[in-house]
Amino acid sequence: MKNIQSYIQDHKKRFLNELIELLKIPSISADSAYKNDVLKTAEAVKHSLEKAGCDVVEICKTDGNPIVYGEKTINPKLPTVLVYGHYDVQPADPIELWTSPPFEPIIKKTDLHPEGAIFARGACDDKGQMYMHVKALEFMVTTNQLPCNVKFMIEGEEEVGSKNLGTFVKNNRDKLKNDVILISDTGMIANDVPSITTGLRGLSYVEVEVTGPNRDLHSGLYGGAVANPINILTKMIASLHDENNHITIPGFYDKVEELSKEERTEMAKAPFSLDAYKKALQINDVYGELGYTTNERNSIRPTLDVNGIWGGYTGEGAKTVIASKAFAKISMRLVPHQDWEEITELFTKHFTSIAPVAVTVKVTPHHGGQGYVTPIDNIGYQAASKAYQQTFGKKPIPQRSGGSIPIVALFEEELKSKTILMGFGLDSDAIHSPNEHFGVFNYLKGIETIPYFYKYFTELSK
Amino acid sequence: MKNIQSYIQDHKKRFLNELIELLKIPSISADSAYKNDVLKTAEAVKHSLEKAGCDVVEICKTDGNPIVYGEKTINPKLPTVLVYGHYDVQPADPIELWTSPPFEPIIKKTDLHPEGAIFARGACDDKGQMYMHVKALEFMVTTNQLPCNVKFMIEGEEEVGSKNLGTFVKNNRDKLKNDVILISDTGMIANDVPSITTGLRGLSYVEVEVTGPNRDLHSGLYGGAVANPINILTKMIASLHDENNHITIPGFYDKVEELSKEERTEMAKAPFSLDAYKKALQINDVYGELGYTTNERNSIRPTLDVNGIWGGYTGEGAKTVIASKAFAKISMRLVPHQDWEEITELFTKHFTSIAPVAVTVKVTPHHGGQGYVTPIDNIGYQAASKAYQQTFGKKPIPQRSGGSIPIVALFEEELKSKTILMGFGLDSDAIHSPNEHFGVFNYLKGIETIPYFYKYFTELSK
Repeated sequence: MKNIQSYIQDHKKRFLNELIELLKIPSISADSAYKNDVLKTAEAVKHSLEKAGCDVVEICKTDGNPIVYGEKTINPKLPTVLVYGHYDVQPADPIELWTSPPFEPIIKKTDLHPEGAIFARGACDDKGQMYMHVKALEFMVTTNQLPCNVKFMIEGEEEVGSKNLGTFVKNNRDKLKNDVILISDTGMIANDVPSITTGLRGLSYVEVEVTGPNRDLHSGLYGGAVANPINILTKMIASLHDENNHITIPGFYDKVEELSKEERTEMAKAPFSLDAYKKALQINDVYGELGYTTNERNSIRPTLDVNGIWGGYTGEGAKTVIASKAFAKISMRLVPHQDWEEITELFTKHFTSIAPVAVTVKVTPHHGGQGYVTPIDNIGYQAASKAYQQTFGKKPIPQRSGGSIPIVALFEEELKSKTILMGFGLDSDAIHSPNEHFGVFNYLKGIETIPYFYKYFTELSK
Repeated sequence: MKNIQSYIQDHKKRFLNELIELLKIPSISADSAYKNDVLKTAEAVKHSLEKAGCDVVEICKTDGNPIVYGEKTINPKLPTVLVYGHYDVQPADPIELWTSPPFEPIIKKTDLHPEGAIFARGACDDKGQMYMHVKALEFMVTTNQLPCNVKFMIEGEEEVGSKNLGTFVKNNRDKLKNDVILISDTGMIANDVPSITTGLRGLSYVEVEVTGPNRDLHSGLYGGAVANPINILTKMIASLHDENNHITIPGFYDKVEELSKEERTEMAKAPFSLDAYKKALQINDVYGELGYTTNERNSIRPTLDVNGIWGGYTGEGAKTVIASKAFAKISMRLVPHQDWEEITELFTKHFTSIAPVAVTVKVTPHHGGQGYVTPIDNIGYQAASKAYQQTFGKKPIPQRSGGSIPIVALFEEELKSKTILMGFGLDSDAIHSPNEHFGVFNYLKGIETIPYFYKYFTELSK
């Protein structure tokens, strides 16, 4: 790729400013109050693809937020890369913990990002990583170095379970026809330890509601005599893990893929410092399933986490009340072969069965998706590996991620092509948290690495 | 008492309107946003005491909300009744469950209140019951039938633990000197089953905070590898009760008063229908400590209830986050001989001790108070009993209440006099809940009964 580094240097300021403009729009898909910002963001992505050189760009309506589609075909005989990303972001709360407003992007230096990092909701997940692909295309088109065809599919519902993407994919198999799917929505181990994500966890996300008495009660007059929905909810949730932190839902582990001793030994080679991990999170100790390391617990093992809980009086001061209802949002991360719909059913059946007769329980599934594994002998993975070697001077480490991109399994099923996860973020980028950020180094390194993927993938496809 | 019934009939409309005006002021002591309404309410109570015939009325400053003091001395040789009540109210949330706005009082008929009931926050607890005493005084003064001296002490912090009342009482022992303390802040069994509360439970109210990682984390990248503060909090709270619903805090039951078989048999005579109880709350079953009846569980036994819990994402939709912190408000109802400060210490020590090393725990005591028992051989109780017989035509049943008026134990300690709890509310009045109300019958019956208490107490004191 000729002049790529100089091109990036010459246009660095603009690349950053364009991303900053995109980050200013609060495209929070979980909260309908931001509907217009979501649509505004889709428009902005459309324009950026047109400017980057796509021949065809369109905003495709869905039953939810629209999908931005773009393509640049140079020769039907050449391979086609389909880029997937999302322009929606997570809610920003707890807002008070942000050191700068989540939608007023600012570049600040950090220990891990001496060249500075862009602080904003969505900086890394996924506006920043998605936009690297737009700028990589701009470079290849402007310098006449695009070696193959490219398609973009940028959705606006990833953070709420890609509700409508499945239907869109099913209805547009030809339009989306491709030889490999390229996604930057994951991370790498460190800026000097490049890695490629070869596995993703599946997800089942449910909301539970426990109802006791038909109204809030005075805890003095009724305390001790009626089931307190909050006390009951804590008992029910607590019982979902045993003393070894195994999940107690019958059948939960039946289909879990057990890795061989060799595979686990291979995984264990990835550089990892437990002390640094604890220090970064300011925790005295880690906590998890007996018999597995930290890196195994958050990648090859399924989990059950309460993501939110609420009930009763949560305001200032004290209120002696027994609430009528208590609620929790619970998500389970799944590993390959666990079917998310089956797990959701197992959870619902079990959770309802453990409720005492004194309360009623409602379980509402939010969304879910299957896990995924990329074989490293596939040419897409090899092209990515060579691209990282070119720009980082190091062979990347294949790594299982604990995160989920539910739609990836569906892509393979519907489009019959493999997905390559070239993530340039770091675990410390605080995605889904206050002060999310994305390193300037990572952003530019992504723009530099992506064109090499196109180059090597085209060569290996011959 | 001459003409009391006709006096009440003649002034019924005004008695109701005056109370309705008082109920319109949202004197929520738990929320500092209502500070001015609290002060406005104190002023209104002051004026009502002046109009009712007190010689001296003053608003006494404290470090918190002021205390309204009033007195009417007719002859220092005669006994003095000290009336205690409170003008502050509970928060109104969940506001959406009110069928009419909590601070726009309205009179509606109900099955239990065919003559209508006043619906408003504070209607029963305690503005309505406190104001009965003001109107009873008006009657006795206007008709020259006040048989003894009377003092009023109406505070504005009862719903937040009477923070400053203790100091006020300690500093004003002479001013508050009395022969009996009269309080209407409890209930009776039914409008045709009068009862007098002879026992109150103590209270320890704490807030707990569990902290895991130093920031909210992505539940995919960290799920299963770090302690989730919400999961941990549920485990910790769940462990506070064993499988028989006994509280597991070491030493918690050490000083609990165990009632004799005879006393429990006596208690069991109070009319009670478990079916009606379950039907009223729309629950399939009751729930509580093994070996005790519903009426024992909520009166002679201590309890531990979560009054509020919160943590993580509680908004619309789904957020895959592991929260940095989780919180709960927990209150324990105590029985006579359990010391609330000792129990608070036991709780704090135990709760901290059961936290896994992977999290840190903070326990903040909110407030508390001791339990109380009124001996029924005391002349105050006998005067009250005769008063009910006079106006209800039935001997009232002595009854232990599950509620707490923490300050009562302190009154006895500091002022060396017994407290008589003449409550006219019903359990179904929904105090501390949406749609709190107070029967018009109960309000007027209270105004009618109170003067007889003065009469008989004065006679029995001779």
